Amino acid sequence: MHSSPNGPVTETRLEDLSEFITQKQTTIWIDVVDPTPDEIARIGKEFHFHPLSLEDVARGDQRPKVDQYDDYQFIVFYGLTIAADHCQSREVDIFLGKHYMVTFHKSDLPIIAQVAERWRTNAVELGNHGVGFLLHSLLDALVDEYFPVLDDIAERSEDLEEAIILAEQPILQAEILRIRRELLLIRRVAGPERDVLNVLIRRDPPLFGSKEIVYFQDVYDHLLRVTDTVDIYRDMLSSVLDANLSMVSYTLNVVVKRLTSASIILMSISIVAGIYGMNFVFMPELDWRWGYPFALGLMVLIAAAEVAIFRRVDWL
Amino acid sequence: MHSSPNGPVTETRLEDLSEFITQKQTTIWIDVVDPTPDEIARIGKEFHFHPLSLEDVARGDQRPKVDQYDDYQFIVFYGLTIAADHCQSREVDIFLGKHYMVTFHKSDLPIIAQVAERWRTNAVELGNHGVGFLLHSLLDALVDEYFPVLDDIAERSEDLEEAIILAEQPILQAEILRIRRELLLIRRVAGPERDVLNVLIRRDPPLFGSKEIVYFQDVYDHLLRVTDTVDIYRDMLSSVLDANLSMVSYTLNVVVKRLTSASIILMSISIVAGIYGMNFVFMPELDWRWGYPFALGLMVLIAAAEVAIFRRVDWL
Amino acid sequence: MHSSPNGPVTETRLEDLSEFITQKQTTIWIDVVDPTPDEIARIGKEFHFHPLSLEDVARGDQRPKVDQYDDYQFIVFYGLTIAADHCQSREVDIFLGKHYMVTFHKSDLPIIAQVAERWRTNAVELGNHGVGFLLHSLLDALVDEYFPVLDDIAERSEDLEEAIILAEQPILQAEILRIRRELLLIRRVAGPERDVLNVLIRRDPPLFGSKEIVYFQDVYDHLLRVTDTVDIYRDMLSSVLDANLSMVSYTLNVVVKRLTSASIILMSISIVAGIYGMNFVFMPELDWRWGYPFALGLMVLIAAAEVAIFRRVDWL
Amino acid sequence: MHSSPNGPVTETRLEDLSEFITQKQTTIWIDVVDPTPDEIARIGKEFHFHPLSLEDVARGDQRPKVDQYDDYQFIVFYGLTIAADHCQSREVDIFLGKHYMVTFHKSDLPIIAQVAERWRTNAVELGNHGVGFLLHSLLDALVDEYFPVLDDIAERSEDLEEAIILAEQPILQAEILRIRRELLLIRRVAGPERDVLNVLIRRDPPLFGSKEIVYFQDVYDHLLRVTDTVDIYRDMLSSVLDANLSMVSYTLNVVVKRLTSASIILMSISIVAGIYGMNFVFMPELDWRWGYPFALGLMVLIAAAEVAIFRRVDWL
Amino acid sequence: MHSSPNGPVTETRLEDLSEFITQKQTTIWIDVVDPTPDEIARIGKEFHFHPLSLEDVARGDQRPKVDQYDDYQFIVFYGLTIAADHCQSREVDIFLGKHYMVTFHKSDLPIIAQVAERWRTNAVELGNHGVGFLLHSLLDALVDEYFPVLDDIAERSEDLEEAIILAEQPILQAEILRIRRELLLIRRVAGPERDVLNVLIRRDPPLFGSKEIVYFQDVYDHLLRVTDTVDIYRDMLSSVLDANLSMVSYTLNVVVKRLTSASIILMSISIVAGIYGMNFVFMPELDWRWGYPFALGLMVLIAAAEVAIFRRVDWL
Repeated sequence: MHSSPNGPVTETRLEDLSEFITQKQTTIWIDVVDPTPDEIARIGKEFHFHPLSLEDVARGDQRPKVDQYDDYQFIVFYGLTIAADHCQSREVDIFLGKHYMVTFHKSDLPIIAQVAERWRTNAVELGNHGVGFLLHSLLDALVDEYFPVLDDIAERSEDLEEAIILAEQPILQAEILRIRRELLLIRRVAGPERDVLNVLIRRDPPLFGSKEIVYFQDVYDHLLRVTDTVDIYRDMLSSVLDANLSMVSYTLNVVVKRLTSASIILMSISIVAGIYGMNFVFMPELDWRWGYPFALGLMVLIAAAEVAIFRRVDWL
Repeated sequence: MHSSPNGPVTETRLEDLSEFITQKQTTIWIDVVDPTPDEIARIGKEFHFHPLSLEDVARGDQRPKVDQYDDYQFIVFYGLTIAADHCQSREVDIFLGKHYMVTFHKSDLPIIAQVAERWRTNAVELGNHGVGFLLHSLLDALVDEYFPVLDDIAERSEDLEEAIILAEQPILQAEILRIRRELLLIRRVAGPERDVLNVLIRRDPPLFGSKEIVYFQDVYDHLLRVTDTVDIYRDMLSSVLDANLSMVSYTLNVVVKRLTSASIILMSISIVAGIYGMNFVFMPELDWRWGYPFALGLMVLIAAAEVAIFRRVDWL
Repeated sequence: MHSSPNGPVTETRLEDLSEFITQKQTTIWIDVVDPTPDEIARIGKEFHFHPLSLEDVARGDQRPKVDQYDDYQFIVFYGLTIAADHCQSREVDIFLGKHYMVTFHKSDLPIIAQVAERWRTNAVELGNHGVGFLLHSLLDALVDEYFPVLDDIAERSEDLEEAIILAEQPILQAEILRIRRELLLIRRVAGPERDVLNVLIRRDPPLFGSKEIVYFQDVYDHLLRVTDTVDIYRDMLSSVLDANLSMVSYTLNVVVKRLTSASIILMSISIVAGIYGMNFVFMPELDWRWGYPFALGLMVLIAAAEVAIFRRVDWL
Repeated sequence: MHSSPNGPVTETRLEDLSEFITQKQTTIWIDVVDPTPDEIARIGKEFHFHPLSLEDVARGDQRPKVDQYDDYQFIVFYGLTIAADHCQSREVDIFLGKHYMVTFHKSDLPIIAQVAERWRTNAVELGNHGVGFLLHSLLDALVDEYFPVLDDIAERSEDLEEAIILAEQPILQAEILRIRRELLLIRRVAGPERDVLNVLIRRDPPLFGSKEIVYFQDVYDHLLRVTDTVDIYRDMLSSVLDANLSMVSYTLNVVVKRLTSASIILMSISIVAGIYGMNFVFMPELDWRWGYPFALGLMVLIAAAEVAIFRRVDWL
Repeated sequence: MHSSPNGPVTETRLEDLSEFITQKQTTIWIDVVDPTPDEIARIGKEFHFHPLSLEDVARGDQRPKVDQYDDYQFIVFYGLTIAADHCQSREVDIFLGKHYMVTFHKSDLPIIAQVAERWRTNAVELGNHGVGFLLHSLLDALVDEYFPVLDDIAERSEDLEEAIILAEQPILQAEILRIRRELLLIRRVAGPERDVLNVLIRRDPPLFGSKEIVYFQDVYDHLLRVTDTVDIYRDMLSSVLDANLSMVSYTLNVVVKRLTSASIILMSISIVAGIYGMNFVFMPELDWRWGYPFALGLMVLIAAAEVAIFRRVDWL
């Protein structure tokens, strides 16, 4: 738990909270990591948060949104973490009052600790700025985390495209579905988050001064870029899916042509053997001195002719 | 039939209805389960409901909507029930006056009885709140029922994805269509219900006080999450359908390659047999002491060579 | 031709028209069935209709719309008729003045005659209502006709789904295209008709009193339900199309696996016969007493082994 | 070049232009066919047209639009011509002043000559109407040309659908792509043209009197019908594409089933022959008097049995 | 680095910058090619640019946008360059003050040098126009570069369509994906750039005089044409993809029919040989004088009959 009373950010115990809140003239950030239901209730009671917003924090899995209450905003935002080999979204619940910001989140969002660290080390310089700059530094850091994830997806998409032209298949299927799932995940949080920033920027009467709104506009632009990029990759991915299907069908074409051509050649050879295996009494070739080599030669000749023909019509 | 005259909710007979309605200062909830046309007409007459809204109740299968009448709102909403192995939507018709709420619905919506039960047990505490809180508690309960259905769909979708990568097929087809149908069902009610809540929140002049509107905003957020989620699953499902088709085509590829490769090997063996079945007088091998084993060996050799080649080009 | 001068609706001759129109205090409905160009022109002249709207009536095949003229509205609406085995849309052109409604349509819309009949029998009761109620009763009847058509489509869609899981095919193709065509037909009329009703309801200054607008709102809700339903079926139908393609591919898979497996078994048997058909001098089996049964047994054995293997890998 | 100084339209030389323009009280239409850059420049200079609009005329291939200048509107519109067997769009550039209309276009738009002819013959009657009616008669004629093109596409689409059910293929592919291309062409001009008319109708302050706006509303309705119809055909065409693919796959199914069934029957016959071609010393059938007919009969029997089986499972 | 102090544009050193800026009455264009972080910082400091916009310049890869600051606009725009065989987008960052324009970009945008050259040679004539004309000449030149790229894509799309009807395949797949990628690239820049121009045109209070706004409207129209065209090609391309898949499936159909027909003919011949290879003691044909030619003739006859049959049902 960190706070910034114009001075350095410090770790505080829950019991000393009320003391900070009474110091109305300073900006306080209380960051609650892995909150228990009891902690949520106690902090909520301290700050007089609305039961509905506390219920949202306790339940989790909310849609990104900004709810306007009488003396604070309740903002739901998401960060992304790359766990194992796929990304996951992590909820951050933000209560933003006139002079304080209270955040609740799980411990697996290291980026928030970094923001707190940066805020703590630059406390003197940053302390003069209001709660708006504090919120900006948090949202900006969260949104900036989206870009490496998108870059990772871009790289994997390009690998997919190359793999498709080489027609390697069954691994692809699972990979396409996984990328699609991640894109949907990002889209699901980035879309409503854009609306959140739109509210922060355009709310009338304004929530922040024009100096701060420029900064939120910047985060908004970043989110626009995120959703644009996600849409592009989704579009590209569906092309890739189509190309994949087309490629698989084409490969089948080639294989069928090759294998069936081979069958026909073998069958032709078989027929020659079959003919000279007939038991007619009068079959002049059978008595020839070179009948056997002649038959073998005939087989080779027919096979060679067919290979040549199939090559020409591009079936082999 | 339940009512809450600031005191506990009680079951009442239709005949005693007029008595309650005259007590204008209290909040009454009349819940009509499995109404007959006659009951609808009688209650409608008692409350002076418009013939059009009574007709909607009698006919059923209405679109979620809120119709504004002079002294009441007519709201059509839906609950979901999971019957057998697929979910179904159940209509709830709500008449909301200044001091009363009248609801009509079929008996297979146990959630409404639960809401009534909760309202009844907390009557003293809740009675002070107006009809807006009563409506909220009903809508909130109905919408909360959507999430377990969505979770169930999520689980089945993930099963589908795994099954596709394992390429089990004909059961899938029916399952995909069934999930799609359920998603469309939820979409069809959740979409217009969002509009209903938008009207309840934003109607000018406001229908409820700002204290109540915060609660309706919460239901609205839940409905947004429902429609978001449905859209995500629909998108995911169409990817799954594409992946399925692609997988089926690929499997065909593999099978065709394997089986035709096998044919070619068998044909090659057959040719050897065919050759030594020819009746030429001069065929040195036929007279060899080890001619027969030689022929068999030749067959094995050719087969082995072909197996090796097909293995190398990944056709077997 | 019917009219309702507060008294009963009567059939009138074109010549007596002017007489009715001068009675400005009563509501007149003139219904022209299968109009000739001459009749259109004469009635148009009598009522001073704008040449553009008369041209629209004469030409037919207009988009549903409402055109505002100085002293009347020109409304284009559509009814559906189920002819043979597919539905068709039938245009109804409506001129709506302060005290009259003039409608033009082909004779194959029996529903309009029914509305007229109902209006005629209830003339005393309905006569007091203005021209708005007259228009509503017509539009409501036309829109109500859409639902049985949609129910019919729903039934056929469900038949299609079942048929697909049973993989019966070529009849489906034509049926899918036919249902799609009908859905597009309904979409094409219901979409703009929604706009027509929106204009009738929201036009400023209002066209009708608030008492009548409630009724038009009801028709509007019905049209919303129609377009919602059409969209759902279109979505479902495209899933069915995808499922169909996937099913066909899968069936191909199964067939190819079965038939090629059978080929391989037959070829294996053939090889045994080929081997013992070779003419080697030294082939011990040929001289065995039980050589022939041995060979036949070998064939059966190999075939049985292969059947077992193919069964195990699910290829037969 | 035609003009209508309230009197008949006449062909004039470029030199006499200034003379007409000074007669401010009459309506002039100057129609420039196949203009050279020099002619564009000279007329532009005479009328004080903005360099940007003159550049658009010279370059051609503009998007349908209406640009508002100080004392004239610059309108880009398109007509359709059916050249050879596919339709093409032809640009018409219109400068519309208070008392004049100047149009630039290529010579292959015979419809404009017809409009001019009609205007010329009815000059006395039409001359009293302002420049708005002149513009309307031109736009109306251009838009009316779209319908025969759409009817032609409708006919070809229906031919396609029938052809698909009969499963004739490679000609279709090219035809589908061609129809699609034409629909896109019409969509590309009709969509923005709708916006053009919207501007002409709704511009505030109004460009034309209410009497003229009714006529532009009519053209607007026609364009709505065009875009509606194009969307319907595009939707239908994509169904046709899907149906086509499905049909091709199904045909493959049938063919594979038939041909492979035939192979299996032939292989079975071959095995009988193979067995009696074995060289075992002790093979009783070989010495039978009726062994040979027995073998042939056996072949026929097996083949017949297989045909019957395959017929039953619908594989032949 | 170029500037236009009403007099000719000149190349200046960074040190002399402040001198120019103080001459407030002239229009200055400072074009910074391949800026180093240090140069960006120094110029930014000189002009008092906001840190956020300087950060955007330094980072690059921004979304096209216009950010309004107190005394300047920050505009991100893109030019296209055709490198190797595919097009790439190149960012141009523009700071637009009352009397100056500062641009930052990489060196591979030759078009900017051309604009500067044109501005320099016509400095006297153009110098009287304000900074709006300067901006227009830059944006116009950048957008005009899009059209040759689109023409190139059009050409390649048409080649693709023809190639598909000829059914050449694997090169296509990669080419379709590449064109799609380029279309997405253009769409990604042209869409937001349209919004940029919309802001430049419609911002209230207006950024430029009405004389300049006409020119920006022109660039806006061009961007509309770009996005329209991109949408058309994307639509066309997806038809091409569908047609491709359908064509591949159809080709497979034809190939399977041909090759399997050939197999059946060869098998039939093989059966005749098999029959006369049987070792029955009593086979009259074997002793016939012309038995062998008879057998060969029978083979030819059967093959010919099958060829005829397969030809008739269009399988060969």
